[in-house]
Amino acid sequence: MRLFGYWRSSSSWRVRIALAYKNLAFELVPIHLLRHGGEQNEPAFRDRNLMSQVPVLELSTSWRLTQSMAILEYLEEAHPHPPLLPSDVVGRARARQLAEIVNSGIQPLQNLKVQQTLRDAGVDPAPLVRGFVATGLAAIEDIARSTAGRFLVGDQLTIADVYLVPQLFAARRVGLDLLPFPTLLRIESTCEALPAFAAAHPSAQPDREDAPSTP
Amino acid sequence: MRLFGYWRSSSSWRVRIALAYKNLAFELVPIHLLRHGGEQNEPAFRDRNLMSQVPVLELSTSWRLTQSMAILEYLEEAHPHPPLLPSDVVGRARARQLAEIVNSGIQPLQNLKVQQTLRDAGVDPAPLVRGFVATGLAAIEDIARSTAGRFLVGDQLTIADVYLVPQLFAARRVGLDLLPFPTLLRIESTCEALPAFAAAHPSAQPDREDAPSTP
Repeated sequence: MRLFGYWRSSSSWRVRIALAYKNLAFELVPIHLLRHGGEQNEPAFRDRNLMSQVPVLELSTSWRLTQSMAILEYLEEAHPHPPLLPSDVVGRARARQLAEIVNSGIQPLQNLKVQQTLRDAGVDPAPLVRGFVATGLAAIEDIARSTAGRFLVGDQLTIADVYLVPQLFAARRVGLDLLPFPTLLRIESTCEALPAFAAAHPSAQPDREDAPSTP
Repeated sequence: MRLFGYWRSSSSWRVRIALAYKNLAFELVPIHLLRHGGEQNEPAFRDRNLMSQVPVLELSTSWRLTQSMAILEYLEEAHPHPPLLPSDVVGRARARQLAEIVNSGIQPLQNLKVQQTLRDAGVDPAPLVRGFVATGLAAIEDIARSTAGRFLVGDQLTIADVYLVPQLFAARRVGLDLLPFPTLLRIESTCEALPAFAAAHPSAQPDREDAPSTP
């Protein structure tokens, strides 16, 4: 498997966590989202994803997947152990709900292309992004108060946690105060102690930059 | 089951299609997204979803689900027949990928709150939305050329089609030319001939309006 990604892309980061947690070997192909107008816009990459977005998981020369949620569900079905979804239907629904609050409720607003489009239109994206992130995290904190154990849904790691950790990192980058989310911060600490999260962290990636250009 | 939704919300529409296709009875609770500053912002609704978004599927007095993808995956696991996912792992991954291109790649940019926020900032959201919709539909058309049969993934209806049909409706509302997407238009026609799609269409809902205010 080859993963086309960017060290600081939260969608790429989710896939790295899942691959590491499931002990799956992969080759990382860094796609620099800023250099030369963005390598994701070059023909060689657009042949792999017309949307010019990372991550892309290439499973063979003949098929590849985009969209982090589709990739994680595929990895769960093809490599079920260790699991990233609970075994009961209600728990699985909860984990997917929390992950989707990040995936479709928050993250699309903070993606690079959206931010660039807003800046081109003369709008500072930061306050808008902070508002959406705050609303989404408040919803997750509220649900987690009744679903969380060690992790967001009970005592086992799920896709909900895989989506949470990169989202909290992105929230700090836009200057959001995270003190209103004590459950999320506790679970983030628990996750960060796991080897898979250490291996997948942006600071551990070969394409990391110490003083990166924004964003 | 009670579904809190709005006749023209594409996320609510997806859930209506799935419920109708699986022959599941439900009570519809209309939430008017525009009247009185939006009923989704009232305390009675926010107790059900702090994100102030439809759809919400209430399964009992003690648990409910938000996020259309989590709801559809739940319905698929709890009521597997007729299925909305293929039986093979690769087909399932393809259906989820195509659905997610709409769910997280396109739709969040056209949601009501995002558009209101942009207007408040003095930005006309229509060209921005058209750009994202065009990019997403081009990616789906490109993938569908190799995966489609009667429907987007092979010859059986899947969640990919459930996401496609409301998205094409929304694309027309922002004035996008759909002629570059012949595969998608053909599949839309096939879907619209199914009773579940007729029952779920906005024009068949009790809260529809003939001359609605925008959006």
